[in-house]
Amino acid sequence: MGVSEVTNRKVASDIEAPDHARISEFCPQYASLMDLLSRRWMGIILRVLMSGPHRFSEILAAVPGLSDPLLTQRLREMESRELLERRVFPTSPVRVEYELTEAGRDLERAVRVLSEWAEKWWSKPADQPALSHK
Amino acid sequence: MGVSEVTNRKVASDIEAPDHARISEFCPQYASLMDLLSRRWMGIILRVLMSGPHRFSEILAAVPGLSDPLLTQRLREMESRELLERRVFPTSPVRVEYELTEAGRDLERAVRVLSEWAEKWWSKPADQPALSHK
Repeated sequence: MGVSEVTNRKVASDIEAPDHARISEFCPQYASLMDLLSRRWMGIILRVLMSGPHRFSEILAAVPGLSDPLLTQRLREMESRELLERRVFPTSPVRVEYELTEAGRDLERAVRVLSEWAEKWWSKPADQPALSHK
Repeated sequence: MGVSEVTNRKVASDIEAPDHARISEFCPQYASLMDLLSRRWMGIILRVLMSGPHRFSEILAAVPGLSDPLLTQRLREMESRELLERRVFPTSPVRVEYELTEAGRDLERAVRVLSEWAEKWWSKPADQPALSHK
């Protein structure tokens, strides 16, 4: 919004000017990240992997209710976005482990901040207003 | 991966126990928050409102490409989750402003951390691997 459009809203326009410059750049990276993180089980799988590399069966056991095909899908999505590495050890039988990349480990702060917010503001049933549908 | 983990995986099992207890609590609050934040334009609308209360037309003008009905929908969703307050001033004509609640303002840190991550890891086109479909 141009300053001229805001005649007597001095305060708002003062704050808006630098902010507008920043937010007007559409950020597809942010949108992609949110799309990825909002997928069912993604946050919890990330949290399991943040404690170190794990085998498929270990992740599955750590997340009650997570199905085998859905975990496969999530791991592939994380791998395709270079958040995760699949490591194959040439033992017998072969051992396969999933390990977060540097980018994946760097998501820890974001996941923690989001969890803390959810815990702080929506933890009590009375504080959870119903979410309207998309 | 830590060196000790490769040999007898002591470290992984040690970490897993307390972590499992923490992550096994399914967190619907976190899921709701991610669902909300991942909705198209939500992040950018939040960032506009973080600079202070705004009128509908001001938000619309600050976000290129955002449509009138979609902004209405997003504002309603934020209001229903108590992130936003709609304030009506009895002027003539009536002035309506949208202002973040304390919970809404408290999302600033989360939105900033997420933006920083996206900027750091996916800002260069070469660093943006294609996202597979849900």
